[in-house]
Amino acid sequence: MAANTNIVTDDYRAKLLRTAAVKLPPFRTLGEDAGALVILDQTRLPQDTVVVRLSTLDAVAQAITTMQVRGAPLIGVTAAFGVALALSARNDATALTEALSILSATRPTAVNLQWALSRMAARVNSCPAEDRAQVAWEEARAIAIEDERANAAIGQAGLTVLAPLRPKGRPLQVMTHCNAGWLATVAHGTALSPLYAAHSAGWPLHVWVSETRPRNQGLLTAWELAQAHIPHTLIADNAAGLLMSQGQVDCVLVGADRVAANGDVANKVGTYLKALAAREHGIPFYVAAPQSTIDGDCPSGALIPIEHRPASELGEHDGLSGLSCCNPAFDITPAALIRGLITERGVRSWR
Amino acid sequence: MAANTNIVTDDYRAKLLRTAAVKLPPFRTLGEDAGALVILDQTRLPQDTVVVRLSTLDAVAQAITTMQVRGAPLIGVTAAFGVALALSARNDATALTEALSILSATRPTAVNLQWALSRMAARVNSCPAEDRAQVAWEEARAIAIEDERANAAIGQAGLTVLAPLRPKGRPLQVMTHCNAGWLATVAHGTALSPLYAAHSAGWPLHVWVSETRPRNQGLLTAWELAQAHIPHTLIADNAAGLLMSQGQVDCVLVGADRVAANGDVANKVGTYLKALAAREHGIPFYVAAPQSTIDGDCPSGALIPIEHRPASELGEHDGLSGLSCCNPAFDITPAALIRGLITERGVRSWR
Repeated sequence: MAANTNIVTDDYRAKLLRTAAVKLPPFRTLGEDAGALVILDQTRLPQDTVVVRLSTLDAVAQAITTMQVRGAPLIGVTAAFGVALALSARNDATALTEALSILSATRPTAVNLQWALSRMAARVNSCPAEDRAQVAWEEARAIAIEDERANAAIGQAGLTVLAPLRPKGRPLQVMTHCNAGWLATVAHGTALSPLYAAHSAGWPLHVWVSETRPRNQGLLTAWELAQAHIPHTLIADNAAGLLMSQGQVDCVLVGADRVAANGDVANKVGTYLKALAAREHGIPFYVAAPQSTIDGDCPSGALIPIEHRPASELGEHDGLSGLSCCNPAFDITPAALIRGLITERGVRSWR
Repeated sequence: MAANTNIVTDDYRAKLLRTAAVKLPPFRTLGEDAGALVILDQTRLPQDTVVVRLSTLDAVAQAITTMQVRGAPLIGVTAAFGVALALSARNDATALTEALSILSATRPTAVNLQWALSRMAARVNSCPAEDRAQVAWEEARAIAIEDERANAAIGQAGLTVLAPLRPKGRPLQVMTHCNAGWLATVAHGTALSPLYAAHSAGWPLHVWVSETRPRNQGLLTAWELAQAHIPHTLIADNAAGLLMSQGQVDCVLVGADRVAANGDVANKVGTYLKALAAREHGIPFYVAAPQSTIDGDCPSGALIPIEHRPASELGEHDGLSGLSCCNPAFDITPAALIRGLITERGVRSWR
């Protein structure tokens, strides 16, 4: 953990619940505390619910790199607060440039990060020097609020997609991958937002939760769903094809880290294999993400940079000295495999 | 570990090497020692090379169930020795029936187990009662020798399949799944046998090794390949689609636990997803297995029983109390996705 972070010992949950506008999902991932950013340390979940206070630019950058905060939307919002922290600490000519440079380098694939940084830069550059820090905080808060609202809207748009897929006499079976729940955002989540909305509406649901190797973010999804009392079952990523071939999946619903202008989607590695299997079995495959995930400047998925993460994520393998590992964190699902992209503005398809 | 097993402390490797007819693969998985069966405990690999002595039927059954021995061909051979051990201990009217019943129930998917037990039953039942134990040992040894020979022949047949796929100017890139190497057999392996043969022939090779969740048998493959000095890289199962889409895979080569009469293949869960991705990218997908893996009585893959293994294999997840898991150990790859089945008699296709 960074030297600049501290464990907050007060009742973070109760504090956030008091300010939360919605009941489901019950928690948020971000808060402010006396000029600092407060986050849930997602590397400690689901075992421990640990809250970390980030009071410097460097602490924010490290929290993103080490995946204490993760999920494309949340990375963008967190980085925005990182800019605000940087300008509060030092409001000179180079502070903004430096903050943008450091934060921009944390993770390459999620476009929300670049989108949030560009927006922060434009806003801060258009105001008087003495107001910059204050304006940066306000803009970061605005981005956070918009994320929450966009995700709630994704939930409602997703309901219209899921409604015709509901089977008679048994729960709707949805498969997801990685974690695209409220933990990946400020609140509500992206891919899980329609499921929370469906659960609130009283639909019987069951969610297949992919483990999502190598970092096992499926456990975050299982933890979220357990808190919301939505029935779910953890599976190895490898089991997705069998379950689809057995008719046990009505729909696949995942998030996105970047959507190219042609509709190709970069998402957590393994998404593509699920999309291929879904097509094979005529199972609708949907992606849910806020508009900020669409990168109009990127013509196709082939041009999206794929982050390669440390080999150590695949485990420390005693007895295999010098083992070579390849650990891409994302893959590209072509638009042709995607039935629709669910955003806060509705459902869009490139097929 | 079973109460009936003991660690053998003598130099097992040196002992087996003296009797091995080939240099590559260097080791075998089975040996005999003073009326007992000696195995490598594969649950301890790659961290520890532990040899276990199995002196009773129950110890053999438990070694199969707990996957101390694993791999369809090796399961069959080990079970055959289990029958011999049972008949050595007690040669009465019910001993054979009891042994067949116990061993047959250990693992449902691999057909080699049923094949080996049927063969043992037929041989033992056709000889005088007083010769049964001796005949059973001889038959088990014959099955082991035939396995070794069949796998060597698979290696040579596989070379003819791989030869036209060799690219100019760079190593042949083969992706495999699970462990279908010498550890899964008496010697040589099935899917890895052609790779050992190719390496012996001096071909430049590189192998993509899938982690193979939930039990990580890919680590066994990495360990085998490291011992044979074949370049290889470990990947998360989820990364297979990305690598294929990037042109980094020339061929996929896997083993099989059962081949139905129509050519559908049951193999380690996750195989099917790789087969779908291979078809999408025009990458040849081959299965290597001895003839004993073909189940002529099973008309199609849909009728192959899929073993479901304990949820605990997906990990003990603190913080997720009452987590529901689904852990199928195998999936079915339809014959249409398989370019050919490489057996000791050559290459066969159902497409």
